[in-house]
Amino acid sequence: LKIFSLNSNELLAKEVAEEIGRPLGKCSVKRFSDGEVQINIEESIRGCDVFVIQSTSNPVNDNLMELLIMIDALKRASARTINVVMPYYGYARQDRKARSREPITAKLVANLLETAGTHRVIAIDLHAPQIQGFFDIPIDHLVAEPILTEYFKGKGLDSDELVIVSPDHGGVTRARKMADRMKAPIAIIDKRRPRPNVAEVMNIVGNVDGKTAILIDDIIDTAGTITIAANALIASGAKEVYACCTHPVLSGPAIERINNSKIKELVITNSIEFSETKQSPKIVQLS
Amino acid sequence: LKIFSLNSNELLAKEVAEEIGRPLGKCSVKRFSDGEVQINIEESIRGCDVFVIQSTSNPVNDNLMELLIMIDALKRASARTINVVMPYYGYARQDRKARSREPITAKLVANLLETAGTHRVIAIDLHAPQIQGFFDIPIDHLVAEPILTEYFKGKGLDSDELVIVSPDHGGVTRARKMADRMKAPIAIIDKRRPRPNVAEVMNIVGNVDGKTAILIDDIIDTAGTITIAANALIASGAKEVYACCTHPVLSGPAIERINNSKIKELVITNSIEFSETKQSPKIVQLS
Ligand SMILES: Nc1ncnc2c1ncn2[C@@H]1O[C@H](COP(=O)(O)O)[C@@H](O)[C@H]1O
Ligand SMILES: Nc1ncnc2c1ncn2[C@@H]1O[C@H](COP(=O)(O)O)[C@@H](O)[C@H]1O
Repeated sequence: LKIFSLNSNELLAKEVAEEIGRPLGKCSVKRFSDGEVQINIEESIRGCDVFVIQSTSNPVNDNLMELLIMIDALKRASARTINVVMPYYGYARQDRKARSREPITAKLVANLLETAGTHRVIAIDLHAPQIQGFFDIPIDHLVAEPILTEYFKGKGLDSDELVIVSPDHGGVTRARKMADRMKAPIAIIDKRRPRPNVAEVMNIVGNVDGKTAILIDDIIDTAGTITIAANALIASGAKEVYACCTHPVLSGPAIERINNSKIKELVITNSIEFSETKQSPKIVQLS
Repeated sequence: LKIFSLNSNELLAKEVAEEIGRPLGKCSVKRFSDGEVQINIEESIRGCDVFVIQSTSNPVNDNLMELLIMIDALKRASARTINVVMPYYGYARQDRKARSREPITAKLVANLLETAGTHRVIAIDLHAPQIQGFFDIPIDHLVAEPILTEYFKGKGLDSDELVIVSPDHGGVTRARKMADRMKAPIAIIDKRRPRPNVAEVMNIVGNVDGKTAILIDDIIDTAGTITIAANALIASGAKEVYACCTHPVLSGPAIERINNSKIKELVITNSIEFSETKQSPKIVQLS
């Protein structure tokens, strides 16, 4: 068994290697002068079960190509099995044709990984569980909800005063699981556009009055949805609002929006490396 | 028949469309806030023979992913055939395992293009003609040498005083072809490292004394080889040195090196878009 890290998530890879008590495999992953990825594996991996840890987070195309080229190199170096650990699966939101003549990039990525020579994929909280079916190889689908839940349990919040909130209809199952574990009720934010070109109305299904609300989502990207949801919860009488998610994409105005929102604390995982420059006093990262 | 351009080489795509008298197909190729490629084809292409023009030049990973995602979208929109025009084929130099445990990225790229749904590839001056064999679909391999040769013929150089020079052993066939067409002899730069860690010696095979030399190569990247070769030619008595290549990668110190070299003029093609900021008074671009 050998573990290799590429460039997207070295800190997590080091943690994993320490946890299982093995050093990271030696490889150099650099760029040529013209931007092409240059990979060289610096120890024999012949006959080994190799695990490669790489999130396809921003810069997504570079991280994905690094991963594919690494898989190609491992294959040609006679690895016995190539196991790809993708804590964050980029392009997961492009999982269907929402409009005519759109690509289904999440499926393309699955095909590219298989073509390169992957034997198994390990992913966390895929945006849609259906993405598992995009693969013809085994895929292990892990969830981060228990880790997020444990953290909130540790806070000693009174479960009688708690409500777990899904920011949209797609995330209700996730909120339901957390609610079961915390013995709390759920609420759902029901976004509705009354007429075209009229601002969305945030309608809250469930009782949040006087309660501590915990918003749970899989991905927080520009943080538009989650911050508007938090403000709507406060406007509906919630006492305080926490938010949590598995994948902190946090692009564009995300940090600013979170800092300016009614969110008391945002809890994230390290499926995507969280750079120092994005630090916000409100954000707590779990492993 | 429909022609689409992606982001790497719009000027060339426009030229091609004008030349064959058809408008470019409508599509939007943008980025989401987190850097993921967003493509939407904005006209029906059902049953059409579609040509997509995209060089996988720097930023190579972004350009390649744009291309693969476009191919996926075309396939799902029921194109009859998908024909990929890649004036410059990125990663072509990674065409063999030069050291143990290296990837063969040129082959990986071929597999990715086929997996995405390509029916045919049209490429110009592949770094190694063997890359044609990396594909199981038809590949048309064009060469730019006749265009470069025509340009030099137009200069009215005296063929008795001319010598065509290959900067390395790999490029001799290309130099031979140009020499035949210009009725001139050839010379070859024979790089040799006498001992490890000793600077390379540029030995010139052939007579260049008092002659006008034309250096021809497929790719000029950092311009190290070509500028050293030009200076060696002058040192060996050449009267003046022109240089030409198909693919102006021109990364890193390339422009500076060319400007400071003994090269009188560098002739390139537009297989890679040449940005204004890289302009050098010595560079002439052909179509
Ligand atoms: N990287 C991205 N950023 C923002 N939106 C995206 C991205 N990728 C896909 N989408 C769009 O998001 C929608 C899917 O989101 P959802 O409804 O939450 O499953 C689709 O309409 C996609 O076109
Ligand atoms: N983008 C690149 N820039 C510089 N060198 C490269 C690049 N891609 C591959 N190579 C190396 O260049 C060599 C091939 O060049 P050549 O001998 O001219 O065919 C191989 O050893 C490659 O490892």
